[in-house]
Amino acid sequence: MLRASILIISDRSARGEREDLSGPALRATLENHGWQVIHQAIVPDEAPIISEHLRAWADSGEVDVILTSGGTGFAPRDVTPEATQAVIERQAPGLVEAMRAAALRFTPYAMLSRAMAGIRKRTLIVNLPGSPKGAVENLEVILGVLPHAVQLLREDPTAESSHRPS
Amino acid sequence: MLRASILIISDRSARGEREDLSGPALRATLENHGWQVIHQAIVPDEAPIISEHLRAWADSGEVDVILTSGGTGFAPRDVTPEATQAVIERQAPGLVEAMRAAALRFTPYAMLSRAMAGIRKRTLIVNLPGSPKGAVENLEVILGVLPHAVQLLREDPTAESSHRPS
Amino acid sequence: MLRASILIISDRSARGEREDLSGPALRATLENHGWQVIHQAIVPDEAPIISEHLRAWADSGEVDVILTSGGTGFAPRDVTPEATQAVIERQAPGLVEAMRAAALRFTPYAMLSRAMAGIRKRTLIVNLPGSPKGAVENLEVILGVLPHAVQLLREDPTAESSHRPS
Repeated sequence: MLRASILIISDRSARGEREDLSGPALRATLENHGWQVIHQAIVPDEAPIISEHLRAWADSGEVDVILTSGGTGFAPRDVTPEATQAVIERQAPGLVEAMRAAALRFTPYAMLSRAMAGIRKRTLIVNLPGSPKGAVENLEVILGVLPHAVQLLREDPTAESSHRPS
Repeated sequence: MLRASILIISDRSARGEREDLSGPALRATLENHGWQVIHQAIVPDEAPIISEHLRAWADSGEVDVILTSGGTGFAPRDVTPEATQAVIERQAPGLVEAMRAAALRFTPYAMLSRAMAGIRKRTLIVNLPGSPKGAVENLEVILGVLPHAVQLLREDPTAESSHRPS
Repeated sequence: MLRASILIISDRSARGEREDLSGPALRATLENHGWQVIHQAIVPDEAPIISEHLRAWADSGEVDVILTSGGTGFAPRDVTPEATQAVIERQAPGLVEAMRAAALRFTPYAMLSRAMAGIRKRTLIVNLPGSPKGAVENLEVILGVLPHAVQLLREDPTAESSHRPS
C-alpha cells in the first residue's frame, strides 16, 4: 500500500477564512489511484511550522510521499520551498523540472513556480501549487512514477549485501 | 510603473576595452515594454563586486527586477551565478529552466548556461547571457510573466490579515 | 586532446559481484569521439569515497571532464549527487536539465534522475545514470557541447588582460 500525507500551506485557510479545496482534491486523486492518505493538515505560511510538519511526518516512518500545496510563488510569505529545503537530505530536481515543463505547455505563469522536491529518510516530499486545479494537474505529471520511486525509497540498504559471501 | 536595473558583468567592458552593447539592448527592450530603468552599471567579473551591486540595488527598495548580463558561462572568471546565489533569499528556478529550454530549441550551447534567478527582499534578480542577442532573447522568454511576478513581490505581507477580524 | 575520466559508482560492481558494463560503454563512446580516457575506477556508493575520487582527479589537472555513472536514483544508498555537490565550486544545471528533458521523451522515469553537474577548478563533473544504455544516451545529449565547454574551462583567467596596455 502506498502511503501519502497532504500538507496545505495557506494563511487564510489556516485561519478558517477560506475553505481548503486543494486538500480534498489531492486526497481524491490519490485515493482514486489506490493510495492511502495518512496525514492531512492545514498550516500558515510560516517556514518553521511547515518544516516541523514535514520533519515529523517523514520521521514517523508511516508515510512514503508528502505532498504540499501552496506557498511556492513569489509573494513575500511564499516560503514552502525554503521550508522544504531545510528538511530534505537529497534533492529530486527532475520531478519539479518535469512538472514545470508540463505546466508550461498550458501557461507561461508555470515558470513562476518555485516548487522543490527532495527526500528525507525514506520519504519523498514534493511541493505542488496552491490552487486545486494546479495541484492536481502537477500531481498527475508525477503520479505514474511515484510507485517506482517509493519502491526504491523502501529498499533495504543492507539488502544488497545479502548476496555477499560471508 | 515597473522598475528594472541592469548590471553588465564583463572584465573588458569594465576596463573600457570593449563597448557594452548588451546594456543598451536590454534597456531598449525594457523601455519598449513600458519599464523604467533605474540603475545601469558595468562591473568586472569579480563576485564580491557583483554581489555588492545586487545587494545595494535590491535593498534600496527602488527596483523590482535586476537583470544581469554576462559571467554565466564555463570560463574560470564566470562567477555571476555564484555572486547571485550569495545574495538571494529565495530561488526562482522556473525562470532559468524556461529560458534554457527555449534557447535549447535554437542552439545546444544553451545547456552551458549556468544562469540563476532568485528573490532578495522585494526584488527579483535574473541572470541573462552576455551577448546582446542572447540577453534580449532570454529576457523575451520571461518578459510576459514579470509584471505578475512584480505584483506578487510587492504584495504587503500584512495585507492578507487585514480581512482578519481584529 | 580532450581528456575524460570515468567513475563507476556501484556497490555490487565494487565488490566484484556484477560486471561493470557502463565503464566500457562510456569509454568506447568517448574514444569514438576522439577523447582520451585518463582514469577509470569503480567505487561503492559511499559519499566520502566518491568525493575523494572526484577531488583527486579534478585537482590533478590531468582531466577536463569527469563522468560518473550510478548512484543518482532514489534508493537509500544513491548519494552520487550529494558527493558531487560536496566537491564542485560552480553548478552547471543546464547540462542535467537538458539530459533529463531529452530522456523524458523516451521514459517518464527520467524524472527520477537526481543527476547533478558542476565545475571544480578546470574540470567539469557530470553525473550519468547507472545503466550502460542510460549512461551512453545521456552522454550523447551533451557530447556535442563538451569540446566548447572544455575550451572555456581551459581559458587562462589572466589571458584577457594581456591586451591591456601596461
